[in-house]
Amino acid sequence: MNRLAAAARGDIPSDLVIHNARIANIFTQEYELADIAVYSGKIAGIGQGYNGRVNFDAEGRAVIPGMIDGHIHIEDTMMTPQAFAYTVALHGTSAVMADPHEISNALGMSGLEYMFRASQGLPVDIFYGAPSCVPASEFETPYSELDMSAIKSMFDRKYTQHLGEMMNFPAVIAGDPEAWGKILAAGDVPLTGHAPGVTGKSLNAYLSSGIDSDHECTTLDEAREKLSRGMWLMIREGASFLDLKTLLPLIKDNPLNASRCMAVSDDITARYLLERGHMDEKMRIMIRDGLNPFVALRMVTLSPAEYFRLHDRGVIAPGKIADFVILDSEIMDENFKISSVWKDGRQIVLDNEVFSVALDGNEYSALAPASKVTVTNIPTAEDIKIKAEGSVMNVIGVTEGTVITKTLNVTPKIEDGCVIPDAENDIAKIMVLERHRNTGNFSVGFVKGLGIKRGAVGSSVAHDAHNFVVAGADDISIITALNKLAEMGGGLVVSDGEKITSSFALPIGGLMSYLPPEKVAESLVEMENAASKIGIEIAHPFMVLSFLCLSVIPELRITDVGYIDITKGGKQKLFADFVR
Amino acid sequence: MNRLAAAARGDIPSDLVIHNARIANIFTQEYELADIAVYSGKIAGIGQGYNGRVNFDAEGRAVIPGMIDGHIHIEDTMMTPQAFAYTVALHGTSAVMADPHEISNALGMSGLEYMFRASQGLPVDIFYGAPSCVPASEFETPYSELDMSAIKSMFDRKYTQHLGEMMNFPAVIAGDPEAWGKILAAGDVPLTGHAPGVTGKSLNAYLSSGIDSDHECTTLDEAREKLSRGMWLMIREGASFLDLKTLLPLIKDNPLNASRCMAVSDDITARYLLERGHMDEKMRIMIRDGLNPFVALRMVTLSPAEYFRLHDRGVIAPGKIADFVILDSEIMDENFKISSVWKDGRQIVLDNEVFSVALDGNEYSALAPASKVTVTNIPTAEDIKIKAEGSVMNVIGVTEGTVITKTLNVTPKIEDGCVIPDAENDIAKIMVLERHRNTGNFSVGFVKGLGIKRGAVGSSVAHDAHNFVVAGADDISIITALNKLAEMGGGLVVSDGEKITSSFALPIGGLMSYLPPEKVAESLVEMENAASKIGIEIAHPFMVLSFLCLSVIPELRITDVGYIDITKGGKQKLFADFVR
Repeated sequence: MNRLAAAARGDIPSDLVIHNARIANIFTQEYELADIAVYSGKIAGIGQGYNGRVNFDAEGRAVIPGMIDGHIHIEDTMMTPQAFAYTVALHGTSAVMADPHEISNALGMSGLEYMFRASQGLPVDIFYGAPSCVPASEFETPYSELDMSAIKSMFDRKYTQHLGEMMNFPAVIAGDPEAWGKILAAGDVPLTGHAPGVTGKSLNAYLSSGIDSDHECTTLDEAREKLSRGMWLMIREGASFLDLKTLLPLIKDNPLNASRCMAVSDDITARYLLERGHMDEKMRIMIRDGLNPFVALRMVTLSPAEYFRLHDRGVIAPGKIADFVILDSEIMDENFKISSVWKDGRQIVLDNEVFSVALDGNEYSALAPASKVTVTNIPTAEDIKIKAEGSVMNVIGVTEGTVITKTLNVTPKIEDGCVIPDAENDIAKIMVLERHRNTGNFSVGFVKGLGIKRGAVGSSVAHDAHNFVVAGADDISIITALNKLAEMGGGLVVSDGEKITSSFALPIGGLMSYLPPEKVAESLVEMENAASKIGIEIAHPFMVLSFLCLSVIPELRITDVGYIDITKGGKQKLFADFVR
Repeated sequence: MNRLAAAARGDIPSDLVIHNARIANIFTQEYELADIAVYSGKIAGIGQGYNGRVNFDAEGRAVIPGMIDGHIHIEDTMMTPQAFAYTVALHGTSAVMADPHEISNALGMSGLEYMFRASQGLPVDIFYGAPSCVPASEFETPYSELDMSAIKSMFDRKYTQHLGEMMNFPAVIAGDPEAWGKILAAGDVPLTGHAPGVTGKSLNAYLSSGIDSDHECTTLDEAREKLSRGMWLMIREGASFLDLKTLLPLIKDNPLNASRCMAVSDDITARYLLERGHMDEKMRIMIRDGLNPFVALRMVTLSPAEYFRLHDRGVIAPGKIADFVILDSEIMDENFKISSVWKDGRQIVLDNEVFSVALDGNEYSALAPASKVTVTNIPTAEDIKIKAEGSVMNVIGVTEGTVITKTLNVTPKIEDGCVIPDAENDIAKIMVLERHRNTGNFSVGFVKGLGIKRGAVGSSVAHDAHNFVVAGADDISIITALNKLAEMGGGLVVSDGEKITSSFALPIGGLMSYLPPEKVAESLVEMENAASKIGIEIAHPFMVLSFLCLSVIPELRITDVGYIDITKGGKQKLFADFVR
């Protein structure tokens, strides 16, 4: 290894020298025109007059460190880790911190194992968090529960690098021994949090466990309080939850806060990644919003590296691993694009092509997870009828652009003594069917804000337990969709009466496809078009649908157990005025 | 431990509540009037309405986190770790990162062991760096060499938390296997550096080893280059080397840099600590110099905690250890003083008294290090005569206020064919005698800038090998001083002809006294007064003298081996025009 010093001194040729690089330096907040000498996968030196066995002329383009996503769920892109890595490598991402709790809900430990194996040898370093909440709460039913001994085993097997988002904040706040046991089992690693709307003494209690970051802030006040209490802030900017614009004043007002803040994806789609980009797009958004580009750069490079204790990366500096990105322009501006990408000193992207990652679907079949459940216990249209047992109905209120839902009080539309969907007032029936254990358990509720005029949409991506969720304007369409989900072994579906108008199979745990990125994106577009044909005009309808089941986010949600409001302690009634 | 959550929620009383605290928050850059609830040594909550079994009214005074010194050599205070901790606790220090390379040079591994044992159970957490350069270079002779297997053993025994300053930068730059082996032996820990004046490709080579911090910057350009190359900067402000004022523009111009910079002591005296303070004094200096007090605060709290991966401290926040300091004023200003100090939730300082640290000298005798060397092989006045073998003499040039020396070319004053000291031109004779192995090896040179008019000063504190160093205006005085040093088994001495005018014994390795802080400070003042009586008017004369032997700092130094200039590759001649 000390030959690295010889390369740094210039006494031996480097493996690679990038000449005429305009290196963006977050410390001086200046560009420095210099050579970057690379030896044995590491940066040996920065300066003038280096010679490489391979020489590459950056022609005065800006060069930035490989970017790092501090929080993402790869499963939600519906792509395999390979296809995901291919896609984000194109956009200059060199590392992601992934929380595999989707696949772990759907397939247990064997799901995590699959993700870990499928992530080896890729052009992006994928570090996994130990999924801390499988299930997310006691109010939903996953494939199997992963308890504190499972957490310990993930670290022992080196599958995981940090503790994944601890979503069961009520349990942590309450001092629940199982939740605290998982945190202790993780040990001295970054303990990532998830505490939407948690403030004051509850926040104190949450933090007393050692959890030290959060990506759920949606208001400036909440973010300021969490930051002031020592939390690292992950500012989410995914496909449908967009918090950057709201929270950036925190950094604009005091740039020093960039040292404790990062921009993250959380949930994002293949299409977004392909069409708009990944961390590069977050950079453009921040720059467009008026943030100093060097400050923005810190939030997608050094700050996540520091939080996740990745001391070997985050800056272009001697001794660090040679992960860097050449832009197509001299500066980082709101329109920059990626020219080429380098990982561990090897060129992995040029002309928008990733080298050395085969994306032929069949090649990955060998890596398919073993577990698979067949759902046969499916209710009929008759089974899901709802008797009108009150005059004020609780309805899940969807607001576009935020993950938070509202509890709406609505007068039910009644026919033959039963509550029926009310398309005129944008009220659809929504149901969740347990799919992992084939129990046939299901629950029914109503949702406002999806825009469904006829037919139904269904999905096996349904956070976090990933049971089948279907929302529709009539019971026949709902049951049709449900049967198609079971037939495909998971996927997305749009139905209209007894007809399937469009479907997309997700054979990996009902969450992911083996198709290459473009095909995944296309399929999702097709599905969204089909959804639009039955009236759904909101952006990312399947993502919105999937989040209606996440029991740990306020206010009203639906799981296989029924309506859940975590801030109200759990299960809620369908009728606000129902008394038994 | 989950009872901490109950205390945070306010459901059970806390052990301690500080009421009416004006907490200085580095993230909001505001003061927040709140209670601090402490349970089981940790901060449970911050907010209103907490009740404690013990309640303390801060009366609206400012409260800051316990401060952290990122780099100090405790031995150079001449106090034991206990006396040192007592002294700095008074000033709100809760943790120090100490490099025990002085005692390790003087007594080998048993010296390090002594420091570690003497640091247990104190009101200040002392974390040790593994002394990476014993000896500092091949050009000086310590008690014994500590090689890479010794480094590994220090970590295995948990004596050390990080790698101590890697001063042998030429070896690291050259890719020397022993130097690189020590770095590898330390493993994945903070690797602290020492690279005065190292820039360009040499700096690249130094950093390629993984070393990631430096405390030797004396110019803004040097500091900016190191920062831009990914190094954490420790800005030194000790007793005689004062770099804060010079380097603060780096942070004033871009406050975000405070996230990678800290203020450190390096070398400091008992008197300075007692009279001026420790990290609190650095805060006052930074504030006086116009730095935002919240930014300054980060540099003595969170930034060192982050660099040293002490994830449990650095901010007053739930879940962190309860180390904090109540000031005597509502704000951090250039005159603030410490009102009370709390460590792990226990009050340790009130009314300028530290609780629970006994400072009776005798009590520590049981902890005395085992090793001791008796020096009997001492040259005579005749032995140290220097024949005039050239007309241009190299002389060590001292400049007050910087650790850097210059090589001066001087026409020697000659008497009877020998070069003699030239008090009129402020040129004294300086000699170093090897003291650990009783070899009798010595070297002689000349120094300008000490101001010696008559007599001699001597010391067994002589960085880093800590041989005997004596500088004087005549040979008799020099030999008198040397004999007294040997007689005391180390210490400080001032002589005048055959008379000892003042002396101070340092029985622990020739470096430290068992006396309590005030006595150590008084003794040093007495010694400095005695030095002043023979003409020495520079500040901290014994510290300046001791650094003239440090072979790893440019330019000219003197060790038992002779003149050394590390930037010129080692040994230098006395006469610039001497040819043999």
